[in-house]
Amino acid sequence: MALTPYKQLEQEWKRLHAFRGAMSLLRWDAAVMMPRGSAAVRGEQLAALETEHHVLLTAPRIIRLLDRAQAASAMLEDWQVANLREMRRQRDHAIATPVSLISRLAKASSQAEVRWVAARQSGRFEAFAPHLEEVVNLVRDKAQLLGQALNLAPYDALLDEFSPRITSADIDAVFKGLTRRLPSLIRETIGQQERSPPLPLVGRFPVGRQKALCVDVMKTLGFPFDRGRLDESAHAFTEGVPGDVRVTTRFDVGDPLSGLLGALHETGHAMYDLGLPAKFADQPVGRDRGMALEESQSLLLEMIICRSRPFLQFLQPLIAKHYGVSGDEWQIDNLYAHLTRVKRSAIRVDADEMTYPVHVLVRYELEQQLLAGSLAVRDLPEAWNTMLEQRLGVKPTNDIDGCLQDVHWAVGSFGYFPSYAVGYVMAAQFYEALRNATPDLDEQLARGEFAGLFGWLHDNVYRHGASVTPHELLLNATGKPLGTAAAVRYLEGKYLESSGTDSAAA
Amino acid sequence: MALTPYKQLEQEWKRLHAFRGAMSLLRWDAAVMMPRGSAAVRGEQLAALETEHHVLLTAPRIIRLLDRAQAASAMLEDWQVANLREMRRQRDHAIATPVSLISRLAKASSQAEVRWVAARQSGRFEAFAPHLEEVVNLVRDKAQLLGQALNLAPYDALLDEFSPRITSADIDAVFKGLTRRLPSLIRETIGQQERSPPLPLVGRFPVGRQKALCVDVMKTLGFPFDRGRLDESAHAFTEGVPGDVRVTTRFDVGDPLSGLLGALHETGHAMYDLGLPAKFADQPVGRDRGMALEESQSLLLEMIICRSRPFLQFLQPLIAKHYGVSGDEWQIDNLYAHLTRVKRSAIRVDADEMTYPVHVLVRYELEQQLLAGSLAVRDLPEAWNTMLEQRLGVKPTNDIDGCLQDVHWAVGSFGYFPSYAVGYVMAAQFYEALRNATPDLDEQLARGEFAGLFGWLHDNVYRHGASVTPHELLLNATGKPLGTAAAVRYLEGKYLESSGTDSAAA
Repeated sequence: MALTPYKQLEQEWKRLHAFRGAMSLLRWDAAVMMPRGSAAVRGEQLAALETEHHVLLTAPRIIRLLDRAQAASAMLEDWQVANLREMRRQRDHAIATPVSLISRLAKASSQAEVRWVAARQSGRFEAFAPHLEEVVNLVRDKAQLLGQALNLAPYDALLDEFSPRITSADIDAVFKGLTRRLPSLIRETIGQQERSPPLPLVGRFPVGRQKALCVDVMKTLGFPFDRGRLDESAHAFTEGVPGDVRVTTRFDVGDPLSGLLGALHETGHAMYDLGLPAKFADQPVGRDRGMALEESQSLLLEMIICRSRPFLQFLQPLIAKHYGVSGDEWQIDNLYAHLTRVKRSAIRVDADEMTYPVHVLVRYELEQQLLAGSLAVRDLPEAWNTMLEQRLGVKPTNDIDGCLQDVHWAVGSFGYFPSYAVGYVMAAQFYEALRNATPDLDEQLARGEFAGLFGWLHDNVYRHGASVTPHELLLNATGKPLGTAAAVRYLEGKYLESSGTDSAAA
Repeated sequence: MALTPYKQLEQEWKRLHAFRGAMSLLRWDAAVMMPRGSAAVRGEQLAALETEHHVLLTAPRIIRLLDRAQAASAMLEDWQVANLREMRRQRDHAIATPVSLISRLAKASSQAEVRWVAARQSGRFEAFAPHLEEVVNLVRDKAQLLGQALNLAPYDALLDEFSPRITSADIDAVFKGLTRRLPSLIRETIGQQERSPPLPLVGRFPVGRQKALCVDVMKTLGFPFDRGRLDESAHAFTEGVPGDVRVTTRFDVGDPLSGLLGALHETGHAMYDLGLPAKFADQPVGRDRGMALEESQSLLLEMIICRSRPFLQFLQPLIAKHYGVSGDEWQIDNLYAHLTRVKRSAIRVDADEMTYPVHVLVRYELEQQLLAGSLAVRDLPEAWNTMLEQRLGVKPTNDIDGCLQDVHWAVGSFGYFPSYAVGYVMAAQFYEALRNATPDLDEQLARGEFAGLFGWLHDNVYRHGASVTPHELLLNATGKPLGTAAAVRYLEGKYLESSGTDSAAA
């Protein structure tokens, strides 16, 4: 019996999913296992699979099947209708950019990444600038084509690739809301914290012990090590597909907490990916709902849950056990002071949850100016430093700590940065709703019980996959549209009220 | 300017090569890194890439290009002509088997492999038999189709996939030559060795130390760790492509040598792969010349070079250093006695170089009978045990140590086993020619100098890639056709003359 057009499409996407999984494994391996001399070979492999993926996705057969399945969609269940919509979305995005442009962009950004690494060492932005300029020009072309095809403004078309239906209007509103309160809140918090700085956490914390601590915590959170791994890499990331999710972090033997926090951030991503609807695991509707929601899950776990006092009641004994430490500096109050320390730093990845959105805002404004052509690449360092000083009151002393600190633009990821800020705001909204639904959340966390937390996330986030828009998902889960009120309430509550040494919660 | 048909074919094969490299990495990861619960996901990924590889290789466009390039081959250089021939060979092999049969065979053998693992635990061959039977039936169909397409007898068509132009007539001659001398030589050697058995090597040898020893030895041999890796897995193997070659071995903490020997065997494969002509790295003519030659390289290094007295002069101090050992049992004579011990064992992978070909002969005869239908799968255990007793004088006490010991047939690899025997005979021929060309080879090895060894192999084996047949390569390198005389001379010289404790060579 012949398959229906819809079922044929499911078969096509099953194959595309297998390609995506293979590419993800190749990227994971490149960052974690690959000998350093093998980068060129790996590049060829990834390029071949990416090109083939694009060819398969944009084949004439696909659009014919999509049209035929659409015509017969009355026969489909709701999830299948949503799946069909996501298939068309992927195909429309893919076909808007010609293969020649994709391949030129791939080549230019692979070149630019190499030059970025070199510039990070030399500190010479000028040597990197022409390569970044080429990437900017190609991304501008891509944004134009994507925008025309999707009937969106060019920059919004880029945003839509990372987080469907999140527009620059949404992001502007988020930053407007945050900017109204963050500068004064940062000032007040820093003032308060300076009056009682935490005791330093001095020592040498071998990688083996740090990793054992991470594994212990991740197991209790429910990370399935029979379908996932934890490894070390230069930057923390999550790769893989549900069924084989791989998390990495970066350990610093002089820092007892940064490796763990990186692992917890990625575990937030991993738990989302692992909780997606298994029935549609190889279909578009079974995927995560974009990068803003992904970041909401990682930031919720790392910043909000794991940097809380209740979580520290669970975590502190594990830290004491794995590191064999016991002094005053290792008690809950002092650890909490470290995990919630607010500082004006020039470096985004070192930033706390309160100054982080400011870093994102700077990038958001600058990347729009670069794409619009109102800021020339050669003027980026100056613009970066000036804007960061205006917004955060700190000025990078060199370009390595300035506009050379992120790889995103070099590899063509324009429109990605805002996901961090939108995700953070969403995380605070989820947290508020979660607390309302779970009055004893703090007690659960303190006891190392996470079924309540992940059960709520499963019901309200994970299980919906890509069946709804991020806006719909958020509204259904929290009863409220995207907004900054919850984030501001959360930050004020955490940083103004429970500072000092009073033992909150449990 | 449009590319010539030949150049277009090079582009096509560049892409196929990238696919092969990706598949190889997925297999390596499955055996070395993958969480055990992720096998189904990986299976889908490999199947998708394999199918796509087959589709690309058998596309109508390819045969049209091959014909056009052939017509213009007067314009091509010798290497390009050879490349064109290898392209056509790959395409002809691929198109002879319909995708439906490939996919049925893939499914049946994946099932059979699972049942084989279960039967290895339960010892119940009957539960595995129907699955093996299905694989045998499908392989028989494939052999029939391949044979028709290639104008070869069905079994010869299977052999040709693994080692081009090596026929059952070649293999029959090899076994005839070996069988004339091996039984008596095994008897004499065992009799001699029983009179002075080696001192046992007792102790616990942690994996970390064993691996450090392997890395030390492999580095000295010239294995490039910036373009390759050494890892642990359940069975030793080599995967990857030149530019990223990955070797594994299996460590047993109670056995100081087996992990190292496994690594050295695989290093023999790896050095061959790494030495292939770089200019054609992504083309068919730049590949190894089949499994018999591959095994000749691994057996030459592991069995002939590394189990020699001169090599032990280099190796013994490293063993002493890494294991911190110094007793009599760790001196060269005693280590040599261990590395050259001949035993009648029922297990192929535990066999020494003298009894190993007998194990291969048993499989060679039985797999031909299975495919011809003159032996029913249900009668395999009895036939196996009877034949091994006749040929080697040892009878397995159960099927786990009998016909369930190898995975090859379960996964459809019929025609592979003879590569081990043909490769061994070739290894001895290469060794004889190498010694003639390098009078001070033993002194070089004793000093830990391997440039002479690998220089000769590079000139005579590696650099030819797949530009000639295995027979031509062997004749050019040694001046002689495939034959067993060198192997017999080598074995007699090693086991009858230098037994006991006299210090040979250096």
